[in-house]
Amino acid sequence: MKFWSQFFIPTLKESPADAEIASHKLLVRAGLVRKLGAGLYTYMPLGQRVMRKLTEICREEMDRAGAIELWMPHLHPAESWEAGPRWAAGREIMFRVDSAGEGAAAKLPREPELVLGPTHEEIITPLVKNEITSYRDLPKNFYQIATKFRNEIRPRYGLMRGREFVMMDAYSFDADEAGAAQSYEAMKRGYEAFFKRIGMHAIAVEADTGVMGGSFSHEFMAPAEIGDDDIIYCEASGYAANREKATSALVPADLADAAPVGEVEKFATPGATTIAALEAAPYGVPASAQFKTLVYVGDGQPFVVILRGCDELEEAKLGALGFTLVRPATPEEIEPIMGAKPGSLGAVKGRIQKPDALAGIFADHAIRLIGNGTTGANEDGYHLRNVNVGRDLAVTRFGDFRRVHEGEPCPRSGQPLKSRRGIEVGHIFVLGTKYSERFGAVYTDAEKQTHPMVMGSYGIGIGRVMQALIEQDHDGDGIRWPWAVAPFQVLVTLLDPKDEAAAAVAKTLAEAAERAGADVLVDDRDERPGVKFKDADLIGIPLRLTVGGRGLKEGVVELKWRSAVANQGSTEARKIPLAEAEAVIAAEVSAAAAVAAD
Amino acid sequence: MKFWSQFFIPTLKESPADAEIASHKLLVRAGLVRKLGAGLYTYMPLGQRVMRKLTEICREEMDRAGAIELWMPHLHPAESWEAGPRWAAGREIMFRVDSAGEGAAAKLPREPELVLGPTHEEIITPLVKNEITSYRDLPKNFYQIATKFRNEIRPRYGLMRGREFVMMDAYSFDADEAGAAQSYEAMKRGYEAFFKRIGMHAIAVEADTGVMGGSFSHEFMAPAEIGDDDIIYCEASGYAANREKATSALVPADLADAAPVGEVEKFATPGATTIAALEAAPYGVPASAQFKTLVYVGDGQPFVVILRGCDELEEAKLGALGFTLVRPATPEEIEPIMGAKPGSLGAVKGRIQKPDALAGIFADHAIRLIGNGTTGANEDGYHLRNVNVGRDLAVTRFGDFRRVHEGEPCPRSGQPLKSRRGIEVGHIFVLGTKYSERFGAVYTDAEKQTHPMVMGSYGIGIGRVMQALIEQDHDGDGIRWPWAVAPFQVLVTLLDPKDEAAAAVAKTLAEAAERAGADVLVDDRDERPGVKFKDADLIGIPLRLTVGGRGLKEGVVELKWRSAVANQGSTEARKIPLAEAEAVIAAEVSAAAAVAAD
Repeated sequence: MKFWSQFFIPTLKESPADAEIASHKLLVRAGLVRKLGAGLYTYMPLGQRVMRKLTEICREEMDRAGAIELWMPHLHPAESWEAGPRWAAGREIMFRVDSAGEGAAAKLPREPELVLGPTHEEIITPLVKNEITSYRDLPKNFYQIATKFRNEIRPRYGLMRGREFVMMDAYSFDADEAGAAQSYEAMKRGYEAFFKRIGMHAIAVEADTGVMGGSFSHEFMAPAEIGDDDIIYCEASGYAANREKATSALVPADLADAAPVGEVEKFATPGATTIAALEAAPYGVPASAQFKTLVYVGDGQPFVVILRGCDELEEAKLGALGFTLVRPATPEEIEPIMGAKPGSLGAVKGRIQKPDALAGIFADHAIRLIGNGTTGANEDGYHLRNVNVGRDLAVTRFGDFRRVHEGEPCPRSGQPLKSRRGIEVGHIFVLGTKYSERFGAVYTDAEKQTHPMVMGSYGIGIGRVMQALIEQDHDGDGIRWPWAVAPFQVLVTLLDPKDEAAAAVAKTLAEAAERAGADVLVDDRDERPGVKFKDADLIGIPLRLTVGGRGLKEGVVELKWRSAVANQGSTEARKIPLAEAEAVIAAEVSAAAAVAAD
Repeated sequence: MKFWSQFFIPTLKESPADAEIASHKLLVRAGLVRKLGAGLYTYMPLGQRVMRKLTEICREEMDRAGAIELWMPHLHPAESWEAGPRWAAGREIMFRVDSAGEGAAAKLPREPELVLGPTHEEIITPLVKNEITSYRDLPKNFYQIATKFRNEIRPRYGLMRGREFVMMDAYSFDADEAGAAQSYEAMKRGYEAFFKRIGMHAIAVEADTGVMGGSFSHEFMAPAEIGDDDIIYCEASGYAANREKATSALVPADLADAAPVGEVEKFATPGATTIAALEAAPYGVPASAQFKTLVYVGDGQPFVVILRGCDELEEAKLGALGFTLVRPATPEEIEPIMGAKPGSLGAVKGRIQKPDALAGIFADHAIRLIGNGTTGANEDGYHLRNVNVGRDLAVTRFGDFRRVHEGEPCPRSGQPLKSRRGIEVGHIFVLGTKYSERFGAVYTDAEKQTHPMVMGSYGIGIGRVMQALIEQDHDGDGIRWPWAVAPFQVLVTLLDPKDEAAAAVAKTLAEAAERAGADVLVDDRDERPGVKFKDADLIGIPLRLTVGGRGLKEGVVELKWRSAVANQGSTEARKIPLAEAEAVIAAEVSAAAAVAAD
C-alpha cells in the first residue's frame, strides 16, 4: 500500500508542446515519464511500476517458452560488428562511443573502439560459438530484458521512437531448420501469451526481414490509428502482412507476356519527364501502360527496377535481391550508365549505354500486365512505344517489388484486401545461418559432422508496449490501464484526509483489497475532491473506492470501475454499504484478477 | 525446477589468463560471466540468477527505507553535466557519445552532444527542481537499479572495476540538514539490512567525499585481502575509516610549536635531493626532522603542501582545500615559482621566488612535532637547518594531509589502530546543497521563504557485490553461495540419468525442496559422477542431494551442505533413508531459509 502524499505522481493539466499523439500526451500528463532530451525519457515512479509489471510478465512467458535469461553488455566492441554481416548498415544507426579520453580528441576522426548495442546478434553468436560445440547442447534460446540504443535522427512520439529503449531480445540456436521452426513457434506462442496477459490487442503479421536477412518473420502489431506501419489483411482468409511485405493476387501466376502487336517506335516527348506528363495530352498514355524505370544502388552497385507507371516501388522488397544497403541512385550516377537523365529512362535491349555497369535489371511481375507499353528511350526528350516485356526488355529477373494497396485481391482468398495502421510491438525472425556461418557458430552432430547452427531472433519493445497500451485504451479523461499491468489496481480516494474516521475506513478497505491481491494506492492528499477525481481518471487506476463525505455519513462507500472492459461491463458508480464493503471489494478484485488471468 | 542439461552452465577447468584474483577466476570457471571486451562482461544464466536475487533484495530494502524507484536514461545530454559543478572532473571518466552519424566524422573533434552516465546527480537534481516546489512534497528519496558507465583506463579484477556495471543509486532531497541526516540514517540502516540479508560481511567506515563534495559519508567495505582500499580501524572504540579519510591522535590537539633553538642556517647538500639522502651520512638528518615540501596544482592554481619527511601525503585529503581537480605540479611548473628544482624546495618565509603565484601553503599538523628541522633552501644544492614551524615557515593553513598507518593511536580510544584491506561495495553521502544550489532545486517553506534542498546520494555496486560475496566465501573447490542469493539453493545430483527409478526419486525430492521454498537444479547430465561433484562444488549450490548408485540400492540418498556456515555447522555427507528424505529435505530447506532471514 502506498500513500499518494509520500509517493510521487506529478500530474499535469497541460500536454507538452512536442507531444503529437494521445498516448505521448498521457504518458507525460499522468506523470509516467519525463523527457530528459530528444528521445530520452526518465521512467517516473508510476511508469516504472508499469515497466516492472510488463517486464515480470514477459520474463515469465519467455521462461515458459523455454528461453534462458542472461544479460549482455550495452557497450559493444566495434570489431564485433565489423566481423558481422551488417556493419555497413548497422553503423548508421549505432551510437559510436569515444573511449580515448580527452587527450586523444585531436586524433579524431578514427574508427571508434566501442558502439552502443541496438541489438545483440553480433555479440551472442560469437559467445555461443565459444561455448556450444555439440548437438547435445542444442537447442538453446537465450533472452535478456535490457536497454537498447539507436542513433535515431528524428526521435518522436515519446517512447515509440526513442534513442534508448527497453527491449526483450532473444536468440535461438537450433541444429536444423525444423528445430528452428519449432523454436520460432514456441516463441510465437510465448508472444501471444504475453500480449494476452498484459491486455493488449496485438496481431501477428507477416513481415519483411530487412537488414536482419532472415528467411521469414512475423511482426506483432497493435492496431492503432497513429501506428507507423500499414497492416494489409483479409478477414476472409486471416491473411495479415506488413505492407512492406504484403503481396496480392493482382497478377495471375500463370500470366504470359502479352503478344507483341507492333514494332518499337521512338517518339519525341520534349519536357515530358514524368508518368503524369505522358498520361496527359498530347500523349495520353495511361499510367498502367507505362514502364517506370528506376535506378538504385545496392552495396555500391547500380541496378534497375522496372514497375508499371501506376505502381509504387516498395523499397523494403528490394531486400530480396540480397543487398545489405540500398538507396536511389543520383542523377549524376544515372546518366553515364543509362545514357539519359531521369525522365527518359528505359530498359529496352540495346538501348542502355553501359549495361555492364548494372548489377541487374529487376522487374515487378505486374509489368506482364502491360501489352504494348511506353518507356523512356534513354535519350533525353524521347520515349518508345509498342514496347513488349518478353520481346523488348532486358530483364534479369522478375520479382515482387510493388506496394500493395487495399482493394487488391487477397493472395489466399482472392477477396479484397483491407488496410489499417498498427504499432509494431514485437518481431520474430528465423535468421537461418547468416550469422552462424559468418561467426563460425557450428556444432558437431552424432556422426561427427559439423553444421552451422540455425538461428532465430526475437524482440519485444517493452517501453513501446507501455505506450501502445495507452494508445489502445484511453478516453478524454485519461488512461484506462488493463488490470495486469496497472501501476496500482485499486485507488482509495479519501475525500478529506483530516477526517480520522474516514481515514480508518479507507485503511481497512485498502487492506482488504491488498489481501485480495491488489496493489493499492491511497489518495491522502490535502486536495479538493474534484482534483482527486480528475487525477484518478488521468492516471487510470482500474478500480476506485471513494471514502468520506456524505456517503460515509450515510454508511456507504462508492465503488467505480475506470473501464467497462475491466470487470462488470459498467463504469457506473455503485454505493456499497459499509458493512459489505470489505467483502465486495475482495470479490471485485478477485474477479478482475481472474478475468485478467484468463 | 531447472534441469542442467536444458539450462546453460559452461564450467571451465582452467582460469582465464587475465584473472588475477580468486573471485574473478571463479566467476568465469563457474560459468557466471564471460568477457566480451576490456571491462565488459556478459552475465551468463547462472550469474544473471544471482544478480536478479541481489536486485530484488536491494529493491525490497530500498522500498522499506522509504525510497521510490524510478529509472533514468543511460545517455545524458552533455549540457546537463556542463551545467553542474563537476564537468571538469567528470568528463575524464565519462564515455563521450557521437550522435552525429557518419558524415559528421570529419568535423570532429568537438564537444559531444551526449555522454554515458557514471552517476545521476546531474540528471535528477534538475528533474526534482522542475517537479517539486513545496516543503509539503519533501522529503523524497529516489532510487534506480541500472547500468552505469565509466571510461576506466585499466579495467581489472572482473566485475570489480568494469567499464559498465550495475548499480543501485539513490538521491534524497530534504528541507534541511536534520532531515538529510534522517534520510542518511534510514539509508544506512537499509544498507545494513541489505548486506545482512545477502549474507555479506560489510562494515560502514568513514570515507572521503572526494569529487562528490558532500559534507560527510560512509563507505560500506567488504573485508577482503584483494580489496583496493585500506580500512583503518580500532577494535576498542569501533572507529573505522577509509585510509584516505582516517585520522589518528598522533599529534596532540594542544601541541604548541617547539621553541626555536638556533638561527636558520644554509648548508650545501650537493646531489642530495631526497629525504633518504639527507638521512644518510654526512648529513644524518632523521626523516622525522625534515620538512617535505610538495607542489601541487588545484584547478590550475599551484599550491604548496608541507609534511614531515617521514610522512606520506594522502592526496584525497587535499579535497578539503576546496579544489575540484588536484594533481602534482611538473618540474617545469615548479622551478619558476619556487626558485629551485624539486629536491631543494622549502617554504621558509622570504625564500620563495614568486609567493604570489601560490594559492596557499598548507601544512600537515604533524610538522608541529618537528623542533629544529631541515628543509630545502629553494636554491639547487642547498638546504636550511634550524628551521622552526612558527617562526620560519610561511604557512597559510594547517590541516590533516598525512596518510595514517596502523599502530598510530586511535582518535577516539588512543589504542593502536589496525588496518585491513576491503572492497568498497556501497557508499552513502550527505551532499548538502552543492547540487541543489547549482541547479536551482529550491522549495518554498510554510512562510513562503525559498531554500535549497539538502541532498544525499547513495550507491551500491550490485555486480561488485556478487563478486565480493565469492571473494569472501570460497575454498579451493569453488564458490560457497549464501542461501539468499544462491543461483539455485538445492542441487539434486542424479548419478545415472538413465536409471529411471533414480530419476523418479530425484524428481520427488526436487519437488519436496521446491515446496519448501527452494530453487532447485537437477543435474541430469550424461556425465561421470566425478565431473558432477566437481562442478557442484565449483558452482557452490548450498545444499546437495545425491541420488542413485549403491546408496539408492541400499535405500538412502546423500545430503551434503557446501558450507558449514549455511546450516548444520557441518559439511559432512549424511545418508538419509529414502522414507524420511522428503521430510528431512523440507526441514533443512526451511531451517536454512530461517537462518538466512534472521
